[in-house]
Amino acid sequence: MSINYLALANAGVEMLHPYQPGKPVEELERELGISNSVKLASNENPLGLSPKAKAAIERALPELARYPDANGFGLKSALASKFGVNIDQLVLGNGSNELIDLVFHTFVGAGQQVVFSQYTFIVYGMATQAHGANAVVVPAKDLGHDLDAMAAAITDQTKLVCITNPNNPTGTFLTKTELATFLAKVPKDVLIILDEAYTEYVAEDERHPSIEWLAQYPNLIVSRTFSKAYGLAGLRVGYMVAHPELISVLNRVREPFNCNSLALAAAEAALDDEAYLSEAVTLNRHEMARYEAFFDSQGLRYIKSRGNFITLDLQRNAMPVYDALLREGVIVRPIAGYGLPNCLRISIGLEHENQRCLEALTKVLA
Amino acid sequence: MSINYLALANAGVEMLHPYQPGKPVEELERELGISNSVKLASNENPLGLSPKAKAAIERALPELARYPDANGFGLKSALASKFGVNIDQLVLGNGSNELIDLVFHTFVGAGQQVVFSQYTFIVYGMATQAHGANAVVVPAKDLGHDLDAMAAAITDQTKLVCITNPNNPTGTFLTKTELATFLAKVPKDVLIILDEAYTEYVAEDERHPSIEWLAQYPNLIVSRTFSKAYGLAGLRVGYMVAHPELISVLNRVREPFNCNSLALAAAEAALDDEAYLSEAVTLNRHEMARYEAFFDSQGLRYIKSRGNFITLDLQRNAMPVYDALLREGVIVRPIAGYGLPNCLRISIGLEHENQRCLEALTKVLA
Repeated sequence: MSINYLALANAGVEMLHPYQPGKPVEELERELGISNSVKLASNENPLGLSPKAKAAIERALPELARYPDANGFGLKSALASKFGVNIDQLVLGNGSNELIDLVFHTFVGAGQQVVFSQYTFIVYGMATQAHGANAVVVPAKDLGHDLDAMAAAITDQTKLVCITNPNNPTGTFLTKTELATFLAKVPKDVLIILDEAYTEYVAEDERHPSIEWLAQYPNLIVSRTFSKAYGLAGLRVGYMVAHPELISVLNRVREPFNCNSLALAAAEAALDDEAYLSEAVTLNRHEMARYEAFFDSQGLRYIKSRGNFITLDLQRNAMPVYDALLREGVIVRPIAGYGLPNCLRISIGLEHENQRCLEALTKVLA
Repeated sequence: MSINYLALANAGVEMLHPYQPGKPVEELERELGISNSVKLASNENPLGLSPKAKAAIERALPELARYPDANGFGLKSALASKFGVNIDQLVLGNGSNELIDLVFHTFVGAGQQVVFSQYTFIVYGMATQAHGANAVVVPAKDLGHDLDAMAAAITDQTKLVCITNPNNPTGTFLTKTELATFLAKVPKDVLIILDEAYTEYVAEDERHPSIEWLAQYPNLIVSRTFSKAYGLAGLRVGYMVAHPELISVLNRVREPFNCNSLALAAAEAALDDEAYLSEAVTLNRHEMARYEAFFDSQGLRYIKSRGNFITLDLQRNAMPVYDALLREGVIVRPIAGYGLPNCLRISIGLEHENQRCLEALTKVLA
């Protein structure tokens, strides 16, 4: 008895590939006969859990057999207060990945167009495919978004435009002027996800005022996460800010208990842990400068990044260098899957981790 | 500037209603001027977190800034070992709710039929609506599934049948013979979700051998959760067991980091905490008998339940009794939303909580 399950599946599923998770660090170490490897592969916060978040998790444990607050009242109140928005402008998700998927589930149908840039977050293409929609992939300009070309690519069939700023995996950055010019060009019946997963790493005076823009652009959806600068990747919590009526439509489709209780408690506490956030951003800036200085001194090409990672362009197939770094106990991220086979993305780690990485690079490239 | 967001949304979304979360206990208490209320509304495990799960969470905290294991290797290995299946027959979810939605995202398209029973888990109807599919709601028999009628309702347009056993919110139970007879009638290109969220509360010799049936029925998907007998509702973790090729198709659509790190660690530990599970099941059986004896002695009608809850049929609008119980500090669940406006579902709590409930019922019904 056998069934062709793909034939039963919705249009688009056949073209998707199951996610291939990276090997756990322990397994890699065993295979390679190494130990004490450093993982600079997933743009995680090297500081570990914020002390305030840890305390909040411990306080929440006695109630863990209860369902989470389906409305996420505590975290939404804290976000609303911090950003000067109303609580009904917020939706919480099991990481911003779930929220991006939620926008697709809610608004994107078969045959519609989704516009995004070459070399950007891989989830947009996957979600477009899974929904039987058509991806309009706009060629990058200087490895980042070409907003003029993206605006020109919008047609009557376009339902959604996705922008990541700073961009992942390249770290490129669009200024507030560039973005504002673009937003003004997008028809109001085309939704825009502005994914700001890395925004906390950008200097405050350079950040675009995305949340202020919501008053002017009711088709704008700002997406953020606690997985990066707030150090909660393992707990899965992201949020979107948009027009309250748009949020209300998303809430019709959202699973009620999508955010777990510890994520809600930890994120609320992390939002209040300014010392941790400040340390994370300062560390990132300082160590980013060290990578840049090293690459400059070695004549290596790299993409100037505003995120918590830096992408090295080896101008040849990067896999041999990736493998050689692995054998030195340094795990970085090859990004051929993003269309950049000559590049390696290196997440900014702790000082001693970055030192290990630079020493390994020196040895491997010699 | 305003946008009709519902007009932009996919077919089906307009008919959905945003989930209306229950008020937090603290807010209810403040409004009613009461304190020390007992919550018997959400079929949660009254024992709280299992000690082994708590220890596992504490061990996992230092790594919480890292992404979860996208493959859930530890938990899947433990489940595979416990149930004698291969690891590739398992998919993990952010609660079984996410997995039910995942089956819909993957396999259910607009215009197709989904067959389920009157008076069953509310998520099937919501997911059917959200996907623009057509719900075929088969009238209940004795408040439970009418399997003969469900089999007869299957047509060429049917993509999926959903069965909950024991059923929620009624607690009714289908025997292994009834289910086996039904499975044999379902065409192999019609998928079946057999939702066993409450199966651990059923005596082992009465449980249907659903996982053994997988070898015979490649269209069968067994769904389970850690939210009930395992006491992890707040952390969100469920799993499905099915044919490896079916699981592989689901994994194409699944978000890679859908299960958070603490959920993975806690569920693996909870699976191993047999003392906790045994205490939960014993408590439930003992206290269920007390509710039944009370209802029998009072001449009250109720639905015989195999879950961790019991549904009282007041044979008149239940809302005044619900409100009166609230004022006594006892929170139960009205289930008019399931089509049972005369009923109240009471989750089995700790002995003193159930005593409070029975005393309040005595007073309110006098």
